[in-house]
Amino acid sequence: MIDRLFETITARKAVDPASSYSAKLLAQGRNRISQKLGEEAIEAVIAATAGDTKALVGESADLLYHLCLLWVDAGITPAMVADELARREAMSGLAEKASRKE
Amino acid sequence: MIDRLFETITARKAVDPASSYSAKLLAQGRNRISQKLGEEAIEAVIAATAGDTKALVGESADLLYHLCLLWVDAGITPAMVADELARREAMSGLAEKASRKE
Amino acid sequence: MIDRLFETITARKAVDPASSYSAKLLAQGRNRISQKLGEEAIEAVIAATAGDTKALVGESADLLYHLCLLWVDAGITPAMVADELARREAMSGLAEKASRKE
Amino acid sequence: MIDRLFETITARKAVDPASSYSAKLLAQGRNRISQKLGEEAIEAVIAATAGDTKALVGESADLLYHLCLLWVDAGITPAMVADELARREAMSGLAEKASRKE
Repeated sequence: MIDRLFETITARKAVDPASSYSAKLLAQGRNRISQKLGEEAIEAVIAATAGDTKALVGESADLLYHLCLLWVDAGITPAMVADELARREAMSGLAEKASRKE
Repeated sequence: MIDRLFETITARKAVDPASSYSAKLLAQGRNRISQKLGEEAIEAVIAATAGDTKALVGESADLLYHLCLLWVDAGITPAMVADELARREAMSGLAEKASRKE
Repeated sequence: MIDRLFETITARKAVDPASSYSAKLLAQGRNRISQKLGEEAIEAVIAATAGDTKALVGESADLLYHLCLLWVDAGITPAMVADELARREAMSGLAEKASRKE
Repeated sequence: MIDRLFETITARKAVDPASSYSAKLLAQGRNRISQKLGEEAIEAVIAATAGDTKALVGESADLLYHLCLLWVDAGITPAMVADELARREAMSGLAEKASRKE
């Protein structure tokens, strides 16, 4: 779903900021997008600790959306983050194998 | 990449907390996982506003990882979040169409 | 300044929520006040990392204000927090003395 | 209590980072102090939404401490923030007076 989200936001980049929330936020710049990401994370934390699963689904969607906005703004692709996750999983697999041998 | 991450964490759920960071955090419970999600969001915000792209890729990976941990803990599947994103995209498309007609 | 802020908010508690932001937020409850505190912290972090001192003064004022709102809501007094700070300072002084003897 | 906290941290500024947490954090710089402030805010949010008053007192102390550290680092004095709070209170008092006349 991240790829689709990323493509949708990339396509909105060129749209009139008056007709697209994505275009508007991208026009407001890095600090504003970062602020929104931080706010959505706070809302996800509150939904999670309150045990409100339906709200956590919604806040997760908001968080992923603003994270992808930040990637578009910073020139980061989903593939770059996927590579980093694969690198960590490989390292973590090795660490787990080592700990089983102890 | 979210699906793969989610599957990896789900598989770790049953593992000994002493040999897996995922299993350890899941054993510590909802509030602790939420706290970690919040902390990773703060680090992503700082990397983004500092203009440190390499750090932002790493913090994005950390953020997605802890978000998936929270989903596993809360019984949320990636499909539930994907549905919510699709619902919003449909609504946002309608809103954009309406604003173009104005 | 914390004492004064705390007294002002306590006085507003009984006021009509339509005419006071403090009364309105207290009426919205714990999770909403917590959310606002988190948002102000994010804005303080961004002002700080951006090196914007004037903005950091404003965000610090916002952060202290929402922290006091949370205390009023939770039945916490400034004296309770001052006691906790004094307790920590005493402990930290002892730790520093010990480290100088090493 | 803010004045006392600010003076204590200012005094620690010149101390060996190996023997003082304040000196160590000030040596690590702006982004690291901001990160700690953000983390303490997250912990305060979680304590507040969980209804854990004792933990919220502790997290409030941590939050104020790291906020003062940030002020010391940024050259902000408590008086600057107190002035901003007084300015806002004056404005808010006028707004309240105006709304009562409506």
